[in-house]
Amino acid sequence: MKTSQEYIESLRKLNLVVYMFGKRVKNVVDDPIIRPSLNAVAMTYALAANPEYEDIMTATSHITGKKINRFTHIHRSVDDLVKKSKMGRLMGAFTGCCFQRCVGMDALNALSMTTYDIDAKHGTEYNKRFLKYLEYVQENDLVCDGAMTDPKGDRSLPPHKQQDPDLFLRVVEQRPDGIIVRGAKAHQTGAVNSHEVIVMPTISMREEDRDYAVSFALPSDTSGITYVMGRQSCDTRKLEKGKIDRGNVIFGGHEALIIFDDVFVPWDRVFMFREHDFSGQLVEQFASYHRQSYACKVGVGDVLIGAAQTAAEFNGADRASHVKDKIIEMNHLNETLYCGCIACASEGHCEPSGTYYVDPLLANVHKQNITRYPYEIARLAQDIAGGLMVTMPSEEDLRSSEIGKFVEKYFRGKSGVPMEHRMRILRLIENLTMGTAAVGYLTESMHGAGSPQAQRIMISRLAGMEDKKNKAKRLCGIIKDEDTLK
Amino acid sequence: MKTSQEYIESLRKLNLVVYMFGKRVKNVVDDPIIRPSLNAVAMTYALAANPEYEDIMTATSHITGKKINRFTHIHRSVDDLVKKSKMGRLMGAFTGCCFQRCVGMDALNALSMTTYDIDAKHGTEYNKRFLKYLEYVQENDLVCDGAMTDPKGDRSLPPHKQQDPDLFLRVVEQRPDGIIVRGAKAHQTGAVNSHEVIVMPTISMREEDRDYAVSFALPSDTSGITYVMGRQSCDTRKLEKGKIDRGNVIFGGHEALIIFDDVFVPWDRVFMFREHDFSGQLVEQFASYHRQSYACKVGVGDVLIGAAQTAAEFNGADRASHVKDKIIEMNHLNETLYCGCIACASEGHCEPSGTYYVDPLLANVHKQNITRYPYEIARLAQDIAGGLMVTMPSEEDLRSSEIGKFVEKYFRGKSGVPMEHRMRILRLIENLTMGTAAVGYLTESMHGAGSPQAQRIMISRLAGMEDKKNKAKRLCGIIKDEDTLK
Amino acid sequence: MKTSQEYIESLRKLNLVVYMFGKRVKNVVDDPIIRPSLNAVAMTYALAANPEYEDIMTATSHITGKKINRFTHIHRSVDDLVKKSKMGRLMGAFTGCCFQRCVGMDALNALSMTTYDIDAKHGTEYNKRFLKYLEYVQENDLVCDGAMTDPKGDRSLPPHKQQDPDLFLRVVEQRPDGIIVRGAKAHQTGAVNSHEVIVMPTISMREEDRDYAVSFALPSDTSGITYVMGRQSCDTRKLEKGKIDRGNVIFGGHEALIIFDDVFVPWDRVFMFREHDFSGQLVEQFASYHRQSYACKVGVGDVLIGAAQTAAEFNGADRASHVKDKIIEMNHLNETLYCGCIACASEGHCEPSGTYYVDPLLANVHKQNITRYPYEIARLAQDIAGGLMVTMPSEEDLRSSEIGKFVEKYFRGKSGVPMEHRMRILRLIENLTMGTAAVGYLTESMHGAGSPQAQRIMISRLAGMEDKKNKAKRLCGIIKDEDTLK
Amino acid sequence: MKTSQEYIESLRKLNLVVYMFGKRVKNVVDDPIIRPSLNAVAMTYALAANPEYEDIMTATSHITGKKINRFTHIHRSVDDLVKKSKMGRLMGAFTGCCFQRCVGMDALNALSMTTYDIDAKHGTEYNKRFLKYLEYVQENDLVCDGAMTDPKGDRSLPPHKQQDPDLFLRVVEQRPDGIIVRGAKAHQTGAVNSHEVIVMPTISMREEDRDYAVSFALPSDTSGITYVMGRQSCDTRKLEKGKIDRGNVIFGGHEALIIFDDVFVPWDRVFMFREHDFSGQLVEQFASYHRQSYACKVGVGDVLIGAAQTAAEFNGADRASHVKDKIIEMNHLNETLYCGCIACASEGHCEPSGTYYVDPLLANVHKQNITRYPYEIARLAQDIAGGLMVTMPSEEDLRSSEIGKFVEKYFRGKSGVPMEHRMRILRLIENLTMGTAAVGYLTESMHGAGSPQAQRIMISRLAGMEDKKNKAKRLCGIIKDEDTLK
Repeated sequence: MKTSQEYIESLRKLNLVVYMFGKRVKNVVDDPIIRPSLNAVAMTYALAANPEYEDIMTATSHITGKKINRFTHIHRSVDDLVKKSKMGRLMGAFTGCCFQRCVGMDALNALSMTTYDIDAKHGTEYNKRFLKYLEYVQENDLVCDGAMTDPKGDRSLPPHKQQDPDLFLRVVEQRPDGIIVRGAKAHQTGAVNSHEVIVMPTISMREEDRDYAVSFALPSDTSGITYVMGRQSCDTRKLEKGKIDRGNVIFGGHEALIIFDDVFVPWDRVFMFREHDFSGQLVEQFASYHRQSYACKVGVGDVLIGAAQTAAEFNGADRASHVKDKIIEMNHLNETLYCGCIACASEGHCEPSGTYYVDPLLANVHKQNITRYPYEIARLAQDIAGGLMVTMPSEEDLRSSEIGKFVEKYFRGKSGVPMEHRMRILRLIENLTMGTAAVGYLTESMHGAGSPQAQRIMISRLAGMEDKKNKAKRLCGIIKDEDTLK
Repeated sequence: MKTSQEYIESLRKLNLVVYMFGKRVKNVVDDPIIRPSLNAVAMTYALAANPEYEDIMTATSHITGKKINRFTHIHRSVDDLVKKSKMGRLMGAFTGCCFQRCVGMDALNALSMTTYDIDAKHGTEYNKRFLKYLEYVQENDLVCDGAMTDPKGDRSLPPHKQQDPDLFLRVVEQRPDGIIVRGAKAHQTGAVNSHEVIVMPTISMREEDRDYAVSFALPSDTSGITYVMGRQSCDTRKLEKGKIDRGNVIFGGHEALIIFDDVFVPWDRVFMFREHDFSGQLVEQFASYHRQSYACKVGVGDVLIGAAQTAAEFNGADRASHVKDKIIEMNHLNETLYCGCIACASEGHCEPSGTYYVDPLLANVHKQNITRYPYEIARLAQDIAGGLMVTMPSEEDLRSSEIGKFVEKYFRGKSGVPMEHRMRILRLIENLTMGTAAVGYLTESMHGAGSPQAQRIMISRLAGMEDKKNKAKRLCGIIKDEDTLK
Repeated sequence: MKTSQEYIESLRKLNLVVYMFGKRVKNVVDDPIIRPSLNAVAMTYALAANPEYEDIMTATSHITGKKINRFTHIHRSVDDLVKKSKMGRLMGAFTGCCFQRCVGMDALNALSMTTYDIDAKHGTEYNKRFLKYLEYVQENDLVCDGAMTDPKGDRSLPPHKQQDPDLFLRVVEQRPDGIIVRGAKAHQTGAVNSHEVIVMPTISMREEDRDYAVSFALPSDTSGITYVMGRQSCDTRKLEKGKIDRGNVIFGGHEALIIFDDVFVPWDRVFMFREHDFSGQLVEQFASYHRQSYACKVGVGDVLIGAAQTAAEFNGADRASHVKDKIIEMNHLNETLYCGCIACASEGHCEPSGTYYVDPLLANVHKQNITRYPYEIARLAQDIAGGLMVTMPSEEDLRSSEIGKFVEKYFRGKSGVPMEHRMRILRLIENLTMGTAAVGYLTESMHGAGSPQAQRIMISRLAGMEDKKNKAKRLCGIIKDEDTLK
Repeated sequence: MKTSQEYIESLRKLNLVVYMFGKRVKNVVDDPIIRPSLNAVAMTYALAANPEYEDIMTATSHITGKKINRFTHIHRSVDDLVKKSKMGRLMGAFTGCCFQRCVGMDALNALSMTTYDIDAKHGTEYNKRFLKYLEYVQENDLVCDGAMTDPKGDRSLPPHKQQDPDLFLRVVEQRPDGIIVRGAKAHQTGAVNSHEVIVMPTISMREEDRDYAVSFALPSDTSGITYVMGRQSCDTRKLEKGKIDRGNVIFGGHEALIIFDDVFVPWDRVFMFREHDFSGQLVEQFASYHRQSYACKVGVGDVLIGAAQTAAEFNGADRASHVKDKIIEMNHLNETLYCGCIACASEGHCEPSGTYYVDPLLANVHKQNITRYPYEIARLAQDIAGGLMVTMPSEEDLRSSEIGKFVEKYFRGKSGVPMEHRMRILRLIENLTMGTAAVGYLTESMHGAGSPQAQRIMISRLAGMEDKKNKAKRLCGIIKDEDTLK
């Protein structure tokens, strides 16, 4: 396993083509806007090396038998699934943001099942290729980007009906040594902090869309791949001199558009090729795993709850019964979310490939709650924080020789608490509810791993309505069952 | 293990003193108002004897090694805890009501821990007595009532300050062969369907309240014990000729006041005697187990969801997108509840006594949701059912030679569905949302195993706020941590 | 104007054909199940005669200039509309149930506009007929049932496509002196306490359904009309000896199916005849008025809030901060509802007929909230009431010479409060949240004046989306507007 | 009345001491961060000059009889109060942000009543002074900042107990010609766009705090007054070259800390001086008016709803039933808010001073909903917008000669919609839910005019619980009322 320093150094060796604010980023690793997101990924290495968290952060490879970072592990038991959820909460609480590495883990696990199932039906050998690739990832402790979401264009049309056929990523040429692909993947979390990018299709497909049914993995700096950074609320605060106004002074997240401009993929990196009948399964399995991964928001919720409580203590309001009740409500909602990610793991089962799979109904239910409760937790945090969170002067005002004294004097809270501490904790709440971290804690909670309606469709399919109707009909006598009590 | 028929016969042998509507009930077992509740308990025997449900409904006694009904089992593993939750949902779905037997199971499990811990501290031998009693319960496959809630009088006063000292159950005399107790237990679910009543204190206590710190078990027909049946919404429909208007034509629940009018308890049935320092622990452990037990409402929710879907199909509205969306929402809420009871079990742990104990934070979180979601599920069910649910004529109108034809003609729904079926399913929804079953599905969900505020206090205590504050302080730089990434 | 006693006597003169529990009701006025609902209607007379409420309860007829009961008045100003909302809240608070007379008022007001508009288009003279009829109603201070809802059969089919053509009420014969109609109206609130029944179509219609586009008024005891009483949760408690268990010891509501078995209507009582193009307008106008009428639930909410507060005081819990907060929340929700019925009235306007019409968007928004908040207020009331509400023995147990003393002893709350008072207030909460009054406060709130989806469709139509889109486009620069600031 | 250009020119003549990012702002009017907020205030002039909105935006002065901007008007009728609410919605919809001028209007109206009432009790002549000041404001069509909120320090302590006595603004010296004040006012909306600042105390006070019971008005550029701008989420985007990323390309809001460093106030500008017994009334009356003023958020909600609908149309998702339903829900919530601000106005009444005052219960209820619904509307908007809202590249990427083509190609939505339009509408939604406008639409909705708990306390006081309890007691027979029906 790599150390966090080794991880950072390994990124320096990559030659990524990254654009931000219309310009090529020369030094990705040290870019002030990108670096906090890299720091967050680095924590997946740092905590794995910490004996206190080893049990959760590492696992034993079922291929090599070696100790590996859990983010590269294929789940081999219910215990693995439960620990994955706990790892998400732990990492969320340590970084207060999106740490970006779960998406690759989920892609690997989904492919471990789908490649196996394609082979079983079609006699292909994707699983063999995949396992070889997996070993490479595990041995080198790599960060993989799991790239699923296509731009999609007009949402009411399938891939082949789009005016521009590239709005879903597709195979444009088949060659003896591999394939050429073209298209893009949007909303790619942590893309430029990754060594590898694993591409998957984004919807179930029919015969007509077979050229879009493709999955593969490539080094992130493969020729023809370009990254365009997405901008986030308050992103440029990272360019400012002081750190306080950032809220989270260490960590952040990022998302990027990845463009594949006629990129070559060798066959040994191809895991699905025109098997459109498995596109839906791969999407569904990845989605279920990734919906479980929103365990991380419970950890971010921990930070926000802790920040709200701290803010209340700093201004002397923490004994008010309504404040205490709001903190309880925040915890209640956050732990309800925790129940979801634990339950879908604890109810997991073994698939034919030997990989353990979460309960898909409960994983969808969990994610659906993730699209709701963080917003309410954030609302309650803003309630407790007070209006100062959005009217507070900048750190530069505090440091100003002319007016710093006024800022210091008039924003004092409870006696004994340095005014700067109050500023810091309020900026953290701003960061989590409106700033860069709100992108992850709120909007990504809404749309990541599928928008709310996607989960509702799955819940509808998996709810077992026939059994429920029969239970009801029996109790009211529509179905007669004389022997009920025997 | 007893069969359901043997269970019913065993109840006939009891000589219970039961009052209802101001009169002594002569034949408890065949009383038309009580019988449906007895039928529900009988299902705990019937399903245990059904090979299909054996894995969930039975367990292996850790005392005798024999196969026993899980309702008499002491949890010896996380798997036991998870199966308990599944048993609750299963039973709820099969009966559509409160099946009453979980409260005794929870009392037994809590006592298995608390008696052990009292002995460890005070050198008593309660645990030995308890295990002997447990074996008796297991061998005879008995139904136990777990009696905790005292009448409490003025809620703002402790037991010894009440105007009437009997408003909490207490020891009024200590004798060489046992003790004499006086008082009452309110809201006793399934009391008159029980062979045994296990009494526990209802709050943590101080030295001044030591006479109230008492726990014991007695046969339900012990001299001096009187039961007064609580009445329920729509209870007397069970006295009517037809069965349709009951909604649930087979099952029901009941709750009673149990009065202990100077009742003698022999020492070998006493499990706590003035150890006020353990009163709080017993309450808390029983409460956590019992909060988990509200897994049953998920099963009742299954029935209500099935009924709502059926009602929609019967009037041709099931294809409307808003109806489909409401059914999804009902399922989503119901499965969120399921996540709670699974997670608190899956996160359980072993206590010194060897008994497995649920995660108390998550058990409280689960119960808190139970005080909310069934109400919303019921509201959505009424939305889908339509107003006819509360304006429909009686079964007697349908059977009437004079106007039956009009009822039949004008309340027809979709072609091909017998009007009587529509009447039945709507009456079931009425039963679950306003009638006898609403007592269990709604109000008992609110107050059973502790009212909402009781859970909030526990959540507040167990939420681990110090760690959360530290996480927040580190991220915003109040706590400096230079080595974060190492 | 009639006194309440004169009203009751006037009902004795009617010869209604009423069925309940399969049998003809001989004496409708004194029937113990029906009487409380009649008492509620009688309060519309009693309060009108009370000088304290005269300003709200009465108005000046625009036809005769005489003082009339506001329930027979045509709104001639915004002030009239606002007073109508206030009258609803007042009556709700005085009766704690549905007082049934608003539906006729809403029918009269809707017809005052639609008949005028039909005449304007088709050169008919419905409005003249209507005004003559209105004068008769005002002069005799009559209660009218406004009968709109047809049985509807299969919800996915229009009237003429139903297997049984009578599932919507229709004209079966046209005669020189009038028409013959056949069909039924369901969910008819207060039907058997009415002097008159005013029939309206239930949906917008096309040419094919013209025989269903009919509106008329008839005396309630016209030959061929039969009433079948709907049963309600806990209805038969009114047959019991004591009154406590009823909760509301004076008032109630009722709903009935009205069957028109080839009934003759003379032309001067016909207000629409095959003008299918006005069917939708009549439905919409009646619905908007009737959605406003759910002002009454604010009054019932007042009672429930008062009852919850009283229950908390009776058991010594009223000082707990969480109880105080829940009472605040109940009030907040109830007053939010009040805002809706005031706002839709205050924003009313004058129609061509001279009748004032509520703002239809806000009336729909108000009703939509009525389908939600009473359920939450009821949930909070059950929270505060405590579990005793559903486990309490019957009044007969309290009166019992054998066990009355135990019931008295053990259900005492706070010192100084008679136990019977506690029983009474809890039974009232039961009545409002699960019993006969819950039919009106909850389920009727859901479906009366149209089910929730009906309001959503209207909100969608009336929301003015084009203007909203333009506002947004201008602000983000899609629409250029250089002169914004000029 | 001034034109918007005259308003802007009048600001240029002020000599304000404003700091931002630690430095003195040289040119306040043209500062790129401040200017959008000034543009929003300017719209209060522009719309008043627009004949289409004249009826709502202007009024007739009760002092001079001249036509004046409604923002300087004292409400003299219910119609005035209703028009104030409509003006708020109108302005919110036109600017999509906080337009800052209502706070001065609310201060003027509250002072028109409180000065009158102080005079009546204490024989002072504050009202005369005030009316003279009012005439000056009306004649010159001035913008006033209403400055109430003190920094408050430790929330659990009253003013005179604070470690630093200046944490509430106070009189430090009384002179023959006036007074000297010291302290600060926080969260001052639109402060640097104002001609005048009107100071009021922030809480009810006792004798010990009499030096803090002071109200007065000063020109905004009075010597000794310093402004420190609060920073907002995404504030520095206004410094960037392009305008798209701002979301709202024209308007914004701002809030500032105002420091009074021993500032002199002449007696004719003093409206309260140590009358601590009227401090609470002034706070309450200002608060009720200002809670009504949150009518503006309904207008901002209009913009957000319009933007969400546009975004759905741009990506071809607007026909999906779940999208339509979410738009309906957004409208429903927004119109429920509208009902609140209309109802509290429509139920207003005349105070002794002749000023019309809103219904304070309903105004508090309205504001309480404002602390909730905008958050849910924002959540739904983010749901409809899709994840692209937070992952989209910058405008500079779109303009880039290197990668602009990719951004253009891959973020195309529905055919025919320019990609830039899609970018613009998503940036507007970002602006309203996370960016500078979210400060006003969300956090200010939470805390402006008092945090949620402040409204709950008022609701508790004004709810009329005695009457409600009596209504309940009468219905269940605790209060006997034999003559109910007479």
